[in-house]
Amino acid sequence: MTDITGQNIPVHDHGFVRVIDTMGDDAAIVQAARVSYGDGTKGVSSDQGLLNYLMKHRHTSPFEMCEIKTHLKMPIFVARQWIRHRTANVNEISGRYSVLANEFYMPDTWYSQSADNKQGSGEAMGGQENVKNSYLSCMETAFGWYDLAVSSAGDPQNNMAREQARFVLPLSTYTEMYWKIDLHNLFHFIKLRSHPHAQAEIRAYADALATLVMQWCPMAYAAWVEYQQDAVTLSKSQIETLKAAVKYLELLQPAYASGDDLDSMATYLRSKAPGLPRRDRKELEELFA
Amino acid sequence: MTDITGQNIPVHDHGFVRVIDTMGDDAAIVQAARVSYGDGTKGVSSDQGLLNYLMKHRHTSPFEMCEIKTHLKMPIFVARQWIRHRTANVNEISGRYSVLANEFYMPDTWYSQSADNKQGSGEAMGGQENVKNSYLSCMETAFGWYDLAVSSAGDPQNNMAREQARFVLPLSTYTEMYWKIDLHNLFHFIKLRSHPHAQAEIRAYADALATLVMQWCPMAYAAWVEYQQDAVTLSKSQIETLKAAVKYLELLQPAYASGDDLDSMATYLRSKAPGLPRRDRKELEELFA
Amino acid sequence: MTDITGQNIPVHDHGFVRVIDTMGDDAAIVQAARVSYGDGTKGVSSDQGLLNYLMKHRHTSPFEMCEIKTHLKMPIFVARQWIRHRTANVNEISGRYSVLANEFYMPDTWYSQSADNKQGSGEAMGGQENVKNSYLSCMETAFGWYDLAVSSAGDPQNNMAREQARFVLPLSTYTEMYWKIDLHNLFHFIKLRSHPHAQAEIRAYADALATLVMQWCPMAYAAWVEYQQDAVTLSKSQIETLKAAVKYLELLQPAYASGDDLDSMATYLRSKAPGLPRRDRKELEELFA
Amino acid sequence: MTDITGQNIPVHDHGFVRVIDTMGDDAAIVQAARVSYGDGTKGVSSDQGLLNYLMKHRHTSPFEMCEIKTHLKMPIFVARQWIRHRTANVNEISGRYSVLANEFYMPDTWYSQSADNKQGSGEAMGGQENVKNSYLSCMETAFGWYDLAVSSAGDPQNNMAREQARFVLPLSTYTEMYWKIDLHNLFHFIKLRSHPHAQAEIRAYADALATLVMQWCPMAYAAWVEYQQDAVTLSKSQIETLKAAVKYLELLQPAYASGDDLDSMATYLRSKAPGLPRRDRKELEELFA
Repeated sequence: MTDITGQNIPVHDHGFVRVIDTMGDDAAIVQAARVSYGDGTKGVSSDQGLLNYLMKHRHTSPFEMCEIKTHLKMPIFVARQWIRHRTANVNEISGRYSVLANEFYMPDTWYSQSADNKQGSGEAMGGQENVKNSYLSCMETAFGWYDLAVSSAGDPQNNMAREQARFVLPLSTYTEMYWKIDLHNLFHFIKLRSHPHAQAEIRAYADALATLVMQWCPMAYAAWVEYQQDAVTLSKSQIETLKAAVKYLELLQPAYASGDDLDSMATYLRSKAPGLPRRDRKELEELFA
Repeated sequence: MTDITGQNIPVHDHGFVRVIDTMGDDAAIVQAARVSYGDGTKGVSSDQGLLNYLMKHRHTSPFEMCEIKTHLKMPIFVARQWIRHRTANVNEISGRYSVLANEFYMPDTWYSQSADNKQGSGEAMGGQENVKNSYLSCMETAFGWYDLAVSSAGDPQNNMAREQARFVLPLSTYTEMYWKIDLHNLFHFIKLRSHPHAQAEIRAYADALATLVMQWCPMAYAAWVEYQQDAVTLSKSQIETLKAAVKYLELLQPAYASGDDLDSMATYLRSKAPGLPRRDRKELEELFA
Repeated sequence: MTDITGQNIPVHDHGFVRVIDTMGDDAAIVQAARVSYGDGTKGVSSDQGLLNYLMKHRHTSPFEMCEIKTHLKMPIFVARQWIRHRTANVNEISGRYSVLANEFYMPDTWYSQSADNKQGSGEAMGGQENVKNSYLSCMETAFGWYDLAVSSAGDPQNNMAREQARFVLPLSTYTEMYWKIDLHNLFHFIKLRSHPHAQAEIRAYADALATLVMQWCPMAYAAWVEYQQDAVTLSKSQIETLKAAVKYLELLQPAYASGDDLDSMATYLRSKAPGLPRRDRKELEELFA
Repeated sequence: MTDITGQNIPVHDHGFVRVIDTMGDDAAIVQAARVSYGDGTKGVSSDQGLLNYLMKHRHTSPFEMCEIKTHLKMPIFVARQWIRHRTANVNEISGRYSVLANEFYMPDTWYSQSADNKQGSGEAMGGQENVKNSYLSCMETAFGWYDLAVSSAGDPQNNMAREQARFVLPLSTYTEMYWKIDLHNLFHFIKLRSHPHAQAEIRAYADALATLVMQWCPMAYAAWVEYQQDAVTLSKSQIETLKAAVKYLELLQPAYASGDDLDSMATYLRSKAPGLPRRDRKELEELFA
């Protein structure tokens, strides 16, 4: 386990995720769970085992006992997605109180609209240089107007109120915030925002946060990867189809196979998957019994 | 779709779930989603299809646009589990303001501690009558003391403050509350509290609520059953084991099988699962490609 | 009490607050309170009296039993303030799924930065026409770039992904959302956002919402105006100073006054404030006793 | 500022508030506020001044940047009030997993029902010894039944499931929890639960928490006492009555007074309240202008 306080991960051209403070760690989660479940946790020998158990069964409250406070810098269009996660504490720089810096997000590559994903990007566009230059020109127009508006020194009557001047600022403008969240809700945030369907620009932040959690709470992180991030949820019908398919494959065998080949799915699972935790293997066996 | 206002489902010996009011329905969820995703929802022809899409991809916010208000009566030990769901509005009867009624929960059957489930019940106990009678005697002692304490009429100095008299009341005492929650959080509540690991006493309430939602928002309910309630989440290792098992079964076949039997898993899935939505089938095919 | 469903209040040049649905009303608040406080509410004869009592003593949960769902259209810079209120349900139009309309906010008047309020506007600027024209020119540049980017029909490779094209859109761009909130949190929203320190642009929405609540729940609204919106919170030191000042004024009198003039502050309050509810008057009397 | 980690304040006969961990302090609040308000905080010279400003104007989010995690032990009837505060993280011991200890709350004094406060206690009852003894007898009956039920060793079929055995436990039974909350919500909790109308048993916990915050964040605590805890909110009508009363007192004076006595209320406030912060005094002056 690593003290991640002060770590600063640059994201994009001007953004970052910086850790201000943390409360708790893997041990704190275990400690809280043992208060809740008391004797119920005795059967689980190791801390990793207990964390796996909690994560698998969605006993989420012990993970809420860890808290992380970060300083973030991101474009406003990312901040608008970010702030939709309501279970967090936020202090964002106010464009009413302060003149915002002249910083905007410039993507490395411009993409065409995806043909099959209504919300996503497709192939790289042609004429990247042209797009980039026209974009830069747009930015200059907007920030030029803003800078002039808020800084007409000497003529107080023409020093525009900051709260109005910002009307022209583009969604690519960088903003900053302090953001504090508990580990359970952070996991939820990362899962949603690191998803391939999320916009690439916010995925970069989710990945940075994942990197930090991996160091901060390595065992909880491992449990989360195993039971949530890389887990697969199959619908009721998918499961039924899968069961039928496996049944079909099994039925084929007895007629032709002999000896070792007669392994049933359950036998196979039992003998060939020793790496799988006992309970998890048992679940699969029951699924294909 | 049914107007469920006023429906009253008795639960246990004295409890109930009664619907006071609802806001929205299946159409309201669809309407909100179409505001959010606009053109993105055009590809989905039917409302059921859109609700399935939202549920499958955890686009939960449109489900928050429906709200239900209920009047509930339940034992205090159930209320203590219930109230842990924080995203809801609650008005519970106060034992400081009011004298609580002489009503307590009596289970139909008394169970022994489960041998393999730290938090659960096992077999029915022997001597049910004896247990029942001794329990009733306990209840009489507690409620007798309470009634005497709060009702020593004529001697104001010995009319105990209700806020103190209730100290003796058992956790089986019935309480009542108004409880208001949005549909997304209600689905979450039902999933957790109808789980076989939940205590039987609260499962009965979760089941009653499910019955109501099935009538109130039948299409959202169907989507939830398919993609959440009866869905199965397999861990990263379970999925890997399953893939290896299927691969093994497939490998067995070519050597022995011929003709129709040569179907690969993917072919099988494609041809034999016509009832599965195209995207869901594609997911399975990719899983076993 | 009025059914406000469907009411649409225009705000600014393109915005609005439109009521989609409501749940509950004044009677529903009273009903929930009577469940909670039972006998405790018997002493209060009228519904208005009970609502006043609840509001005054911050018994907020019964007000959560009313819910309102609205369709809103507002500039993004307003939406960013709006969304900081976390206890609400939101479905906002997504600029990833949909091409946003060519609509932006244009203030009636441009203001200079306030000299004494770091976050506020001061006097109207000179040269309003010039400012307006240069602003319009900025808007044309931004929306022109956006429109071109998302609509390069015929050349799919140059049809920019909507999620990127929106980078240039200004904070004045209008967005739309469905927004659902309970009455307690709505009152809190209105109080904060109708405050003179709030930006004028969001105050207009708060005022529209207040107008709607006044019709929807007139008694709760009256209680809120009396005990929250127009109430004044005095700090510990302010109260002490005030008490000393009143004491001083009272001390002056006996030396000079006679007859009717000898009224003490308490007497005055008792006799000259018959319109004040008894409990509220008593509070003042005790404050100046 | 004091490191309060590990501090343990006993409450009642068996309860306590113990600090497990804290995140942030006065400086962390100031730091977060300076990110939000930037230049807007320059005018405020001292940290205490800034904290006062934030507290007075209900800029609550910077206070959310501090977090405290506690271990609590309290009777269940207190826990039921406690848990109504939803913005907190909780891990409570589960009576399904663990056998609960034989500990219950015994009040020092038994009170009669208050004559004028529907929810409160009045005078001490007569016959304290008798009440105490009969209460103890009730407790023995309940805990005796519970202990027997969960511990019928040797006869597994008669070892009652813990989840059922607890039905008889009284609301006075002690429970334990880990409880984590941010400072803003903690202040809100303390204000509500230290109020004279709150039940004495929970007030004792609120007082313990206040003692801890006073050491942990002394400047934020001072700001909270001044602007919230000991502040007084006057209703619209109270303020109007007060203004009229003061006007009346002022009107009396000129006719009789002379010299120094001619001080108006505003003059008095200006000259005689030097200890009041300038802005706060100005508020009072405007109130009585």
